[in-house]
Amino acid sequence: MKNDTPAAVHPLAVFAATLDWQDVPVPVRRRTEDLLVDWFGSVLAGQGARPVRSIADFALAQGPEAGPCEVLGHARGSAPMAAAMANAAASHVAEQDDVHNGSVFHPAAVVFAPALAVAQQRGASGSDFLAACVAGYEVGIRVGEFLGRSHYRVFHTTATAGTLAAAAAVGRLLRLTPLQMQHAFGSAGTQSAGLWEFLATGADSKQLHTAHAATAGLMAACLAQDGFTGAADIFTGARGLAAGMSTDADPSRLVDGLGTRWATAETSFKWHASCRHTHPAADALLQLMQAHKLQAQDIAEVTCHVHQGALDVLGPVVSPVTVHQSKFSMGTVLALVARFGHAGLGEFDAGFLAPETVALRERVTMVLDAEVDAAYPRRWIGKVTLRTTDGRVLQGRVDEPKGDPGNTLSREEITAKALRLAAYGSPALPADAAAAAVERLWGIEQQPRVGWLLG
Amino acid sequence: MKNDTPAAVHPLAVFAATLDWQDVPVPVRRRTEDLLVDWFGSVLAGQGARPVRSIADFALAQGPEAGPCEVLGHARGSAPMAAAMANAAASHVAEQDDVHNGSVFHPAAVVFAPALAVAQQRGASGSDFLAACVAGYEVGIRVGEFLGRSHYRVFHTTATAGTLAAAAAVGRLLRLTPLQMQHAFGSAGTQSAGLWEFLATGADSKQLHTAHAATAGLMAACLAQDGFTGAADIFTGARGLAAGMSTDADPSRLVDGLGTRWATAETSFKWHASCRHTHPAADALLQLMQAHKLQAQDIAEVTCHVHQGALDVLGPVVSPVTVHQSKFSMGTVLALVARFGHAGLGEFDAGFLAPETVALRERVTMVLDAEVDAAYPRRWIGKVTLRTTDGRVLQGRVDEPKGDPGNTLSREEITAKALRLAAYGSPALPADAAAAAVERLWGIEQQPRVGWLLG
Repeated sequence: MKNDTPAAVHPLAVFAATLDWQDVPVPVRRRTEDLLVDWFGSVLAGQGARPVRSIADFALAQGPEAGPCEVLGHARGSAPMAAAMANAAASHVAEQDDVHNGSVFHPAAVVFAPALAVAQQRGASGSDFLAACVAGYEVGIRVGEFLGRSHYRVFHTTATAGTLAAAAAVGRLLRLTPLQMQHAFGSAGTQSAGLWEFLATGADSKQLHTAHAATAGLMAACLAQDGFTGAADIFTGARGLAAGMSTDADPSRLVDGLGTRWATAETSFKWHASCRHTHPAADALLQLMQAHKLQAQDIAEVTCHVHQGALDVLGPVVSPVTVHQSKFSMGTVLALVARFGHAGLGEFDAGFLAPETVALRERVTMVLDAEVDAAYPRRWIGKVTLRTTDGRVLQGRVDEPKGDPGNTLSREEITAKALRLAAYGSPALPADAAAAAVERLWGIEQQPRVGWLLG
Repeated sequence: MKNDTPAAVHPLAVFAATLDWQDVPVPVRRRTEDLLVDWFGSVLAGQGARPVRSIADFALAQGPEAGPCEVLGHARGSAPMAAAMANAAASHVAEQDDVHNGSVFHPAAVVFAPALAVAQQRGASGSDFLAACVAGYEVGIRVGEFLGRSHYRVFHTTATAGTLAAAAAVGRLLRLTPLQMQHAFGSAGTQSAGLWEFLATGADSKQLHTAHAATAGLMAACLAQDGFTGAADIFTGARGLAAGMSTDADPSRLVDGLGTRWATAETSFKWHASCRHTHPAADALLQLMQAHKLQAQDIAEVTCHVHQGALDVLGPVVSPVTVHQSKFSMGTVLALVARFGHAGLGEFDAGFLAPETVALRERVTMVLDAEVDAAYPRRWIGKVTLRTTDGRVLQGRVDEPKGDPGNTLSREEITAKALRLAAYGSPALPADAAAAAVERLWGIEQQPRVGWLLG
């Protein structure tokens, strides 16, 4: 801890400013690398998507023509703001990036892009970059937990808590003092924004949300380094985040197990290429179909027993017309899982509007389930009731969907997923270049300076 | 109106997208020019302030080294985002920029900077630029009125409604269709942010708020031009602005008198260099002192009868330690007015901590007044009770503080104010350069292309 720390500095700011890579337990370090490789695949898969291209084109037009910060998929660099904006916009669109269940927060989408940009600008070491990312994960997840379920009903937590996560990661790279980190939190929190309203028409805002969080947090940290001050108590002050944007905020969550509980390692990988709220039911359906050797045509009806958040986010999506919307359609996801055993990017693109998919989609409903809702968001239980065409009624259940910490992916699965995602990008990265980049990325901890990920 | 307008496009988006300079009544056109000149002075006064320098340095580091968009006070240009960020940050710090009473919204601070940057980039005509600014004023003010007093209790309306105002102005310059304008509103509204919490410690966030609103709105409009979509109903949707950030939102205010009521012309100029909430009482005190020929040393005690918003914003500021904080101290403002007859930038700098000021400050209190509170925010009534050292108790009252539409500034006063502000900047603009720039600015309507304001 630096000497300038007044007693009043928030412990979360002290933690983020003083976290060293040696403080991070080895299994958490390995998990951080897993999450980084997984994020890299998501960015490559997303960088060609139309809304992402719009944001990247805007970002590049606002930045210098060259610079130290890599804009992934564009074979060029720019200033930190432009690179962070473009890469963060690309992180989330394939809906394959990670998620922390308890906070319903997607840390990779808002942490890695700004941290990478600033690490490349400053020539930070690989381990310093990774430590900064852990700071971002630990802060963002706790802020998400703090803001609670009432917040998530209206606000996209990845967007709002994301500004704090980005500020923590960049602030740690900039070696902010604890007091400066607190100022960065103030400046980040007062830019916290992101409303779910876009879901009603399937608009492009999600990609704007991650871009905004990444750049707002980056700016907050850079300003703090220059002496710019922010609110001292942006979390619980009378006119702070909780006062404005939550009715059930729990301040104890901000400091829950700081330095002993590693929220980074609680983060889940997404196996299906859809909204995480669909995964528990998808896995429960898969489990049932495998156990009973069912085919898609055996399904007469599926009832998903879900938590309220799933109804809120997925409920409005009844007749998806774009592939992105269809990733928020429980019926579409279950139909693809039933037909292909997996709802990956390829399955969505080829099949989300196929007559067989639509027919199955129409036979899927959701109902609120008290047990599932009570366990959420700490545990995402999947429960489905399936009626077969020959009249059987079967109950499926998973307590931990694939990708959750207790049912996690191996490094082979993570590499394979990242390479599938890289191949999905437009233009796709050549397979050997992608494989070489992923291979290099697994060794980033040892790099004296973080270079460009695509060389 | 363009042909692509679906019936469902919000009337406010249709209005902003289709507003022509000829639609604007001549007195409103003249008032728009008044507001522009007044803003120009505020930017020049503010560009050297420490928090503004921090933001400008960050913005310039993120942008190209040269560009078509003027960064005022820096004798250089950059891309639109960097210029809008720096100029918007400078707009509000001197607390001399305009305010719309009914919405408690400072339109100049978030409208002119992004509109100027995009006008310079595109080579827009002076009248087109002015029309875009009117669109920004009309939209931002109505959004502020819509969000209501509950919003203002926690959120800085200039920051939040400011994203919409900036998007409207830039979107109009980009010739967005009404549907694109609605998308721009969605993208702007989902970035709406800005909490009052910074006031508790007098932090620098206000300057970040205007910079953020200007750039978020600019980005939203540019993205919409490229086909990027936003929420269709960001205002009143179930997970939109009102749902997340207001408990008394009134949708009728969004369309109140569109095209017939010109909110632009309702905007007030600030005469004193302090928070607007102090002005009614300051003018009431002045009126009383002039009527009774009182000097500062005749004052034993002043009680200000104020609206709740004044207590909320000014109440926490009891012992200001910086000149910026002192502009939110009712006692300081009244003390300067009593001593010098005016609380301008020079009076604050020289006198905010003078023993005579502090002694008077301590004899000023505020109490909630039912009549003043009921009239607010439509009318900002000033009422004070003054007890003199010889025991008299006097009542002072003004129904419209100086600078309000019914008690507005002449063009001579506006020019003089702008030149005083320009001379206050650091480094100060040479007086002849400032005078020439203001003179040119009065003729901007006739310019075929908006050039650099400082030539």
